[in-house]
Amino acid sequence: MNVAIIGTGLIGGSIGLAARRRLGAHVRGTGRRAPRGVELGALDAACATPGEALAGADVAVVCAPVDVLPAVLEDVLAAAPEDCAVTDVGSTKGAVVAAAGADPRFVGGHPLAGAEVAGVEHAREDLFEGATWYLTPVATTGGTLLERVHRLVTGLGARPEIIDPDAHDRTMAAVSHLPHVLANVLAAQAAGALGGERMPAIGPSFRDATRVAGANPGIWTGIYRANREALIAELDRALAQLHDVRGLLETDDADGLAAWQERAAQDRRALLEASAAGGPARELGVAVPNRPGVIADLALTLAREGIGITDLSLTPSADGTRGHVALWVRADQAERAAALIAAQGFPVA
Amino acid sequence: MNVAIIGTGLIGGSIGLAARRRLGAHVRGTGRRAPRGVELGALDAACATPGEALAGADVAVVCAPVDVLPAVLEDVLAAAPEDCAVTDVGSTKGAVVAAAGADPRFVGGHPLAGAEVAGVEHAREDLFEGATWYLTPVATTGGTLLERVHRLVTGLGARPEIIDPDAHDRTMAAVSHLPHVLANVLAAQAAGALGGERMPAIGPSFRDATRVAGANPGIWTGIYRANREALIAELDRALAQLHDVRGLLETDDADGLAAWQERAAQDRRALLEASAAGGPARELGVAVPNRPGVIADLALTLAREGIGITDLSLTPSADGTRGHVALWVRADQAERAAALIAAQGFPVA
Repeated sequence: MNVAIIGTGLIGGSIGLAARRRLGAHVRGTGRRAPRGVELGALDAACATPGEALAGADVAVVCAPVDVLPAVLEDVLAAAPEDCAVTDVGSTKGAVVAAAGADPRFVGGHPLAGAEVAGVEHAREDLFEGATWYLTPVATTGGTLLERVHRLVTGLGARPEIIDPDAHDRTMAAVSHLPHVLANVLAAQAAGALGGERMPAIGPSFRDATRVAGANPGIWTGIYRANREALIAELDRALAQLHDVRGLLETDDADGLAAWQERAAQDRRALLEASAAGGPARELGVAVPNRPGVIADLALTLAREGIGITDLSLTPSADGTRGHVALWVRADQAERAAALIAAQGFPVA
Repeated sequence: MNVAIIGTGLIGGSIGLAARRRLGAHVRGTGRRAPRGVELGALDAACATPGEALAGADVAVVCAPVDVLPAVLEDVLAAAPEDCAVTDVGSTKGAVVAAAGADPRFVGGHPLAGAEVAGVEHAREDLFEGATWYLTPVATTGGTLLERVHRLVTGLGARPEIIDPDAHDRTMAAVSHLPHVLANVLAAQAAGALGGERMPAIGPSFRDATRVAGANPGIWTGIYRANREALIAELDRALAQLHDVRGLLETDDADGLAAWQERAAQDRRALLEASAAGGPARELGVAVPNRPGVIADLALTLAREGIGITDLSLTPSADGTRGHVALWVRADQAERAAALIAAQGFPVA
């Protein structure tokens, strides 16, 4: 299989590494760092132009930032062979699917993988291992070409999931882009309310809710813009909900507020249950003295029994002497985990 | 010093324990669990009525849920001696300050302390150690009585901070109540967008942003209602911000969106810097294989060198084989911590 990588960075480089080593593919790539990609074993050849990389390609993967993706895709479709499947890795799909028009060669793609570190230096053969990789074919997409991209994605170690482009963008707007917008809103209002005063130690809710506030402005401006339509729709839903809650507060509607809070609890439970990877997870709450080593004790105690912690958050008390640890373990190991922690003398909820 | 505790639960019991052991106070309490409070050493005597507990009291602390707090306070002020300072521990101050009218004996209070577990059984002498304890005197509050409450709070181990009741409620609305409202909004929209589909593993932003969604409906309905006015004001600010962002998206204003994202980044930095307890903290990002024991290795490595982890969050990759750990350490230990982690073979950002 001949693979063309248009844009050699973390994602493009990782696709190249995995395609070469796992599928024995011949991989040619473009981009400023393509020569480095060759040195690192991610590419067989660095090409000066997309046309050169695309000659004889079975699959082309466009790894450009979302803001330039539609334009780059048009160039690639113009240069790609008649029977070459073309896909991309952008985090929103509406604009790029529109740019492809009715071209049967294009299948939108979005791997849910990445790292804190960008650049081809950090490319890894196993970056996509077990990751969801959305594919967004439309009515005009060629069946053979979709099947080829599906096979490539599986071969890279990912789990392809076929989804309508609009449903994809709405999901991303709801679970990723809107949370970023609301984190910004919270950060601005807290900064306004405090006016430089010390933030009160009110527990984890505020810190958790604003962890992504102001995330990389260069990248996130592009993501917001690329998913404008879906994000505006989610903002309108959020505005409607906030107006409703405002009404409940205005009329001091105790039953209405309690019912709304209860629905949110149900929504969260449903999301947690639906999202647990590798079976349902359970949350355990543990009160601990907040001294160096206490997290280690806890984690080691579970590790010795083969219990993995799938998620963990530590919230220190105001003076830093105590903390509350929320940890998630597999549901079928939760009871044993709780017993082990209790035996260490830590109260578990 | 004679102290009356009106309502013997986690907070009232902890005040009793600390007042008796640290200040040698004589403590009488009311409430269904007051007899248990005596058994646990939190009270000298359990009283059937507030009047009995208040006889001869120097300070009365009203520990009632926020929704009944104004009514209970009025009864306490009616029964308390002429020279008895009366305070409370409610998480919002507007309604209770209004209920006290111009009574010079009342000083509103709000300790930022608590635990995952309620009830006098879980009362601890050190619950307030190092915690901020807001006091909200008004123009009519008697100076001697304020000083007495201030001294009590300091004696319990807390750090009293005097703040205007309205400023207190606005701060709580911005940093605690609004985050809960927005978490509910996000949970509802994600549940709507996914419709029972598996939640994509998109990283920590969504999970962090919704951790408090639907928190204890009984308690939170009371908190929303008690802080209605300030919360409505924060909702209006949030609505205005969301309308602004919607406008930037509608007109596809790249510069406006980038500037807004950048302001959020500045707000978050300012909040983190202002909020670091015990000196500034630094965040380290570590990429780890997500196997049992890896958190233990990391924490132990730091613990052996006397470096405490003040905050920690683990985000597993989609397949659970890798994870990203964000951990906070004291700024002056950050460089050494990073070097120790790097020496373990984990990439640190």
